[in-house]
Amino acid sequence: MKRAIVLLSGGLDSSTTLYLAKKRGYKCLCLIFDYGQRHKKEISFAKRIANLSNSQFKIIKFNLPWKGSALLDRNISIPKITKSGIPNTYVPARNTIFLSFALSFAEAAKAQAIFMGANAVDFSGYPDCRPIYYKVFNKLSKLATKVGQESKSIIIQTPLINKSKKEIILLAVKLRVPLELTWSCYKGDSRPCGTCDSCKLRAKGFLKAKIKDPLSKVNYA
Amino acid sequence: MKRAIVLLSGGLDSSTTLYLAKKRGYKCLCLIFDYGQRHKKEISFAKRIANLSNSQFKIIKFNLPWKGSALLDRNISIPKITKSGIPNTYVPARNTIFLSFALSFAEAAKAQAIFMGANAVDFSGYPDCRPIYYKVFNKLSKLATKVGQESKSIIIQTPLINKSKKEIILLAVKLRVPLELTWSCYKGDSRPCGTCDSCKLRAKGFLKAKIKDPLSKVNYA
Repeated sequence: MKRAIVLLSGGLDSSTTLYLAKKRGYKCLCLIFDYGQRHKKEISFAKRIANLSNSQFKIIKFNLPWKGSALLDRNISIPKITKSGIPNTYVPARNTIFLSFALSFAEAAKAQAIFMGANAVDFSGYPDCRPIYYKVFNKLSKLATKVGQESKSIIIQTPLINKSKKEIILLAVKLRVPLELTWSCYKGDSRPCGTCDSCKLRAKGFLKAKIKDPLSKVNYA
Repeated sequence: MKRAIVLLSGGLDSSTTLYLAKKRGYKCLCLIFDYGQRHKKEISFAKRIANLSNSQFKIIKFNLPWKGSALLDRNISIPKITKSGIPNTYVPARNTIFLSFALSFAEAAKAQAIFMGANAVDFSGYPDCRPIYYKVFNKLSKLATKVGQESKSIIIQTPLINKSKKEIILLAVKLRVPLELTWSCYKGDSRPCGTCDSCKLRAKGFLKAKIKDPLSKVNYA
């Protein structure tokens, strides 16, 4: 059975990507990161989603002591108003760090693919979510690894990259992703804040898909 | 003053790179990794070298639970005989992980460069030590970061990449690198084993440079 590493944050996009990789016939090994994010809550959501989909997972824990992001530093406010440009929730080189661990895991586990739920349509403008970035990472992964020298390759797949949030939600429903058990909010309080970029993109997607977000029905108490 | 992140392992090459970056006028911020390596001993050597050169340092700690390398797994022997091909001391995607953390640090600290003591002459054949790999990583780092979108760049510099070990040692002597306080051995026992690839490459370099390795004079007790 072909194998894939799936980067799983517990959010809507990565959970949908996991169910899609399974549908495509991959045995999925999930990779979850505990990196000092203020919405640490997402980790328990990711673990539950991995378990529900009968997928193994590994958690990698590290810290970025230099912070440099509102997602890591509680002294920086998460913006409510979307300004032009890259917002302060951008974490320096985060996706490169995530992918490099995934590449290591993929090579050690003899996986053929890495699945990541990156999106470049309804997104916050992060540079490491764009198709060109993944194209170059694929070149790098071939050069970086022992398996790459043996004319095999570990391919990074980003099946959601050109989809709107509405399309992702409709796909998630089709794949029976338990959307009520996904967490998107950057703040990680007891309930989603409804005002951060991530909450707003999620709400817009459900509105356009004409579906009620099942997360709103969950009793958080 | 221009700033550089220096990847520092406490070995001969990375220590020489640190002193070279200082000589070139950079304020150096060292990055040291505690990643479950069996030669964990190198970390204390790296810290001492950073202190001696009056450089700040950060230590990043993580684990690779999938191991996949003799450097991480004590159940796998470190080879004494150099066979052709990439040896089992190769750690899957290690330099990609190291560089991605360095890129994050560089962006947060507003550094212009990352210095790494990679070498592709007297080396173990690791794919992520070759010039082509760094060329593509430089492309990636521009695409990956916020600073890269602002037409600034963080450049990865590998000044030792085309030097022989003999040349590196002669450069180290010229730069007054405290070579007696650098650690190269993969095994990390009380004394260097003298038989691993790293010990052998070091010994060959000193022999060709016609210099006695000062490490051999150190009292390890």
